[in-house]
Amino acid sequence: MDIKVSKQAIDDATDALSNWGRWGDDDQIGTLNTIEAADVVSAAGLVKKGRSFGLGIPLDTKIQTGLFGGRWNPIHIFLATGTDAYSGNQDAGGIEYADDAINMPIQGSTHWDSLNHVYYNKKMYNGYDCRLVDSKGAAKNGIENTREKMVGRGVLLDIARHKGVDYLEDGYGISNDDLDACAAAQGVEIRKGDFVIFRTGQQEKCLKSGDWAGYAGGDAPGLKFETCYWLKEKDVAAICADTWGCEVRPNETTEANQPWHWVVIPAIGITMGEMFYLKELAADCADDGIYEFFFCAPPLNLPGGTGSPINPQAIK
Amino acid sequence: MDIKVSKQAIDDATDALSNWGRWGDDDQIGTLNTIEAADVVSAAGLVKKGRSFGLGIPLDTKIQTGLFGGRWNPIHIFLATGTDAYSGNQDAGGIEYADDAINMPIQGSTHWDSLNHVYYNKKMYNGYDCRLVDSKGAAKNGIENTREKMVGRGVLLDIARHKGVDYLEDGYGISNDDLDACAAAQGVEIRKGDFVIFRTGQQEKCLKSGDWAGYAGGDAPGLKFETCYWLKEKDVAAICADTWGCEVRPNETTEANQPWHWVVIPAIGITMGEMFYLKELAADCADDGIYEFFFCAPPLNLPGGTGSPINPQAIK
Amino acid sequence: MDIKVSKQAIDDATDALSNWGRWGDDDQIGTLNTIEAADVVSAAGLVKKGRSFGLGIPLDTKIQTGLFGGRWNPIHIFLATGTDAYSGNQDAGGIEYADDAINMPIQGSTHWDSLNHVYYNKKMYNGYDCRLVDSKGAAKNGIENTREKMVGRGVLLDIARHKGVDYLEDGYGISNDDLDACAAAQGVEIRKGDFVIFRTGQQEKCLKSGDWAGYAGGDAPGLKFETCYWLKEKDVAAICADTWGCEVRPNETTEANQPWHWVVIPAIGITMGEMFYLKELAADCADDGIYEFFFCAPPLNLPGGTGSPINPQAIK
Amino acid sequence: MDIKVSKQAIDDATDALSNWGRWGDDDQIGTLNTIEAADVVSAAGLVKKGRSFGLGIPLDTKIQTGLFGGRWNPIHIFLATGTDAYSGNQDAGGIEYADDAINMPIQGSTHWDSLNHVYYNKKMYNGYDCRLVDSKGAAKNGIENTREKMVGRGVLLDIARHKGVDYLEDGYGISNDDLDACAAAQGVEIRKGDFVIFRTGQQEKCLKSGDWAGYAGGDAPGLKFETCYWLKEKDVAAICADTWGCEVRPNETTEANQPWHWVVIPAIGITMGEMFYLKELAADCADDGIYEFFFCAPPLNLPGGTGSPINPQAIK
Repeated sequence: MDIKVSKQAIDDATDALSNWGRWGDDDQIGTLNTIEAADVVSAAGLVKKGRSFGLGIPLDTKIQTGLFGGRWNPIHIFLATGTDAYSGNQDAGGIEYADDAINMPIQGSTHWDSLNHVYYNKKMYNGYDCRLVDSKGAAKNGIENTREKMVGRGVLLDIARHKGVDYLEDGYGISNDDLDACAAAQGVEIRKGDFVIFRTGQQEKCLKSGDWAGYAGGDAPGLKFETCYWLKEKDVAAICADTWGCEVRPNETTEANQPWHWVVIPAIGITMGEMFYLKELAADCADDGIYEFFFCAPPLNLPGGTGSPINPQAIK
Repeated sequence: MDIKVSKQAIDDATDALSNWGRWGDDDQIGTLNTIEAADVVSAAGLVKKGRSFGLGIPLDTKIQTGLFGGRWNPIHIFLATGTDAYSGNQDAGGIEYADDAINMPIQGSTHWDSLNHVYYNKKMYNGYDCRLVDSKGAAKNGIENTREKMVGRGVLLDIARHKGVDYLEDGYGISNDDLDACAAAQGVEIRKGDFVIFRTGQQEKCLKSGDWAGYAGGDAPGLKFETCYWLKEKDVAAICADTWGCEVRPNETTEANQPWHWVVIPAIGITMGEMFYLKELAADCADDGIYEFFFCAPPLNLPGGTGSPINPQAIK
Repeated sequence: MDIKVSKQAIDDATDALSNWGRWGDDDQIGTLNTIEAADVVSAAGLVKKGRSFGLGIPLDTKIQTGLFGGRWNPIHIFLATGTDAYSGNQDAGGIEYADDAINMPIQGSTHWDSLNHVYYNKKMYNGYDCRLVDSKGAAKNGIENTREKMVGRGVLLDIARHKGVDYLEDGYGISNDDLDACAAAQGVEIRKGDFVIFRTGQQEKCLKSGDWAGYAGGDAPGLKFETCYWLKEKDVAAICADTWGCEVRPNETTEANQPWHWVVIPAIGITMGEMFYLKELAADCADDGIYEFFFCAPPLNLPGGTGSPINPQAIK
Repeated sequence: MDIKVSKQAIDDATDALSNWGRWGDDDQIGTLNTIEAADVVSAAGLVKKGRSFGLGIPLDTKIQTGLFGGRWNPIHIFLATGTDAYSGNQDAGGIEYADDAINMPIQGSTHWDSLNHVYYNKKMYNGYDCRLVDSKGAAKNGIENTREKMVGRGVLLDIARHKGVDYLEDGYGISNDDLDACAAAQGVEIRKGDFVIFRTGQQEKCLKSGDWAGYAGGDAPGLKFETCYWLKEKDVAAICADTWGCEVRPNETTEANQPWHWVVIPAIGITMGEMFYLKELAADCADDGIYEFFFCAPPLNLPGGTGSPINPQAIK
């Protein structure tokens, strides 16, 4: 496609691709509706080796460097410790134990975005007013609606390997043609109801160097704006990546911040997975030539959450 | 069995049931080792209806009432809101969005315990010194070791329904015979490597009444101490329940707080799942008579965590 | 006065008592402007015994019982402990130490309210738009503006002792006449620029019984609505109390929640101190008959804060 | 003095300077005992201009850069906002308001250290066992003991100005002679029971440049080890500075991390104030030539706290 990205292009895509009302006026899960029970059953049939790949990056990775939204790196603290036990301080309690707590931005590490995360013209997916999300919580489109829906067929599109590089350069925009060519080269078909995961290699570059400056909120390889049309045409359940935000940065326009997000979440209603750890899964797929698998990535049951931290499982 | 629970009984069980060294001196996942790749493949064959049951209780349920360990109810706060968007406060940023964060005890809602959670004689499972868990984190037996292992065959033992009650009374101790009789009545076999989930109905009582006093840390129905022998004999992968701590309370002795925990975590090395929400899964199992399913309950990838909040999936 | 409290009464008081513009269009501290340098000097002259009374309630008092606003009791956690030191876990770091952190609602214990805390008709004190306070912070009327202003003459009005009771009953409304009679009986004059602190005894009742149900957000003795006129007439710097919200509860009307707050903060611009611990100060004042003192209650320098936790000092 | 700093020198100073038992076996406030009631009264006499200087750095200053102890920058979040009010979301509650919370390391910004913060040979000040501080809290030497004691005579020693520089260089060690010469040049006497505050200018350098790398935990100008003798000889109440840790860094030895801390907190029992903001106070003192003032810096009443965030007031 040849799209000049702009507010007009966003409006055009919104009009062309909207799923509002498609699954009823009360729907809160958008494209996750594309998964049918039979899809889950057939996806289970992809489990042939009995190996699961965990796609959550370690929560002690210091990926937040202050570029966006006041997010912080997860704070993991202890309410009881083995040193307390060793010191005899737990003797009176009758049990030796450790206990801990986590304080983290929902979208601070590997996570799902839910459909109340991004709005356009003050509306959420399916037409809900954005004021339904305030400081007290979110009355609509929270992640809890998806708590039993993150199960189905997963497909990896290893764009970096397909292009013959360790990682795509920041600013590289992945086109519809790239997606199609990669799928074809891998011998895998994208189907309605799929969890499509694409790999840029950018995260692995950061893991290798230990340098996360810019990962969260800076420049990145990612999907071009035009891919919103591809996603609607394929009718996928979700789109996931190893980057902070799926979308190419710098963005293709200065008229909007994250223009692709303006369309895919509010209009199409796609649940998005970000910062997936793909190194070992990708190596295995390259090794056995099989790029499809059973996918299970349950969010925490967090009412009103704009997403959830997750540790997705790709099971082959 | 006829066990008088005491420190001596704990020592005896520790000696009799220990799995230290069974999977090597470096092992950090204990009985999760009982799951073989073939078990995962065959468990996937249990997916026949294509329906997933989410077993995580909503995180806004106020279950913590101050009885144990300084834990608090999850604090869910917003870093950006739809009201900010509505008010025009996000116009300069070029994107309308909401963002949030969660601060919660790891074991404050539905969760896994990991093998660094409870010690005996200042040792963790597999002989690690309890001082390896201090205020800075845990060097051994953290939940991250299990990040790809929480996949396999799940079995529900619906003890309450088997006994013909909505819920077992607080203080009711589930015996080995109860477990066997329930499995027999349900027509399901417990196998090596299973994720065994038992239902007492206690949580549903609280959900119905809205009264959580005592749920977290007070009296409860649960497993008798003798079941540590049953778990070892069956060689299960994990044991899970709808209660706060699996174990019957008041405990069967005053010589230890949670005597069953003293054995099952440090000696046997069993990963434990607590506060599972089982109402709909149990109803479905009663309906179709099938008490086995594909089970996938990935923990967050939290290095050193004494567990992880989860939303387990039982897929039939 | 004889006021039937209603929205109309709020409007009337707002019109009659507004301090908007009185100290310039850019003012952000309201009635704290009434304190002149000479007042601080003369207040210092009240230090005659060299004894300071700390008026902050201990932060581990569990006063929050869920009645208002999603506030929680302060969470005090440790990042390093003496047990870590004892266990030898700090040897490599070259220093034995403990370290901690606090997570608390700003208004969760003894605190100042700042002038961005309450609005009327979507305006803050001095006419600022309420949208200047969003999820990212507050651009106007934050507590940081008062960081050098909480110093001056303090006066205790011990209403409970004046009435001859240990504590006023919940629902008791303190009238202008009560305030005047108490001051007269104590032989103390209320002057422009004073920090006026009144005692109901309610907090001491809770401290004694250990029962805090209702303290934060339930019924309470407190100021009648009419006192907003008294405060303006006296031209005090601030008003403080030993209760959760200064104002009598149940409120005198159902047309507004906290009707007195609607006037005193947005219109008059009074900084308010709440949950002051007054037992020992009150006993001392009763003992020596001196109800005035040097008062110093610096807020934390928290930009945009709707207030600050404090430990006010009354120095005699 | 000519001290070769080493573990031996620490032991020698500990033996020579210890205040254990000086104020009784139950004492928990150390050198704050040096302040007598008459000192508070005479200090109040220093209030002559009626101007207070707030010495707390803004809590939104991003001073933590990860060098020490897992501390984070204060997290200030909102539980209710003006945008919620504007959007009409608070109409049902009957009051328009904002509310917020703070999550911060106790020692993450301007603060007091208390006497349970640093140990030597597993002992706290006055001989208390370090195990009295565990993950649940601190039974001894917590900051709450000082809640009415942070009042008295303050003296500024403006070392940087005395040396004729904007700021001392990192690594510059302030000697006893420097302290004496500065006091003499300023015409101020250091007395028993004083709150002594010294200025290096380092913080102002960071404020000016906006670069905080190294401020918290890196190199710094500061007191030489020998000053522990000076502090004991002068018998001051507390020592405060505009740096992260008062002490010169790199330290004068590699045998200990913060060797001066090993002596001053556990042996002498000095409460320490760190990261004080001194720019305006210092300018005023230079202007009027008066380096003494009434000092009031109440800590939060945090039972067991290893310190407290503060906004100290120097009142002239």
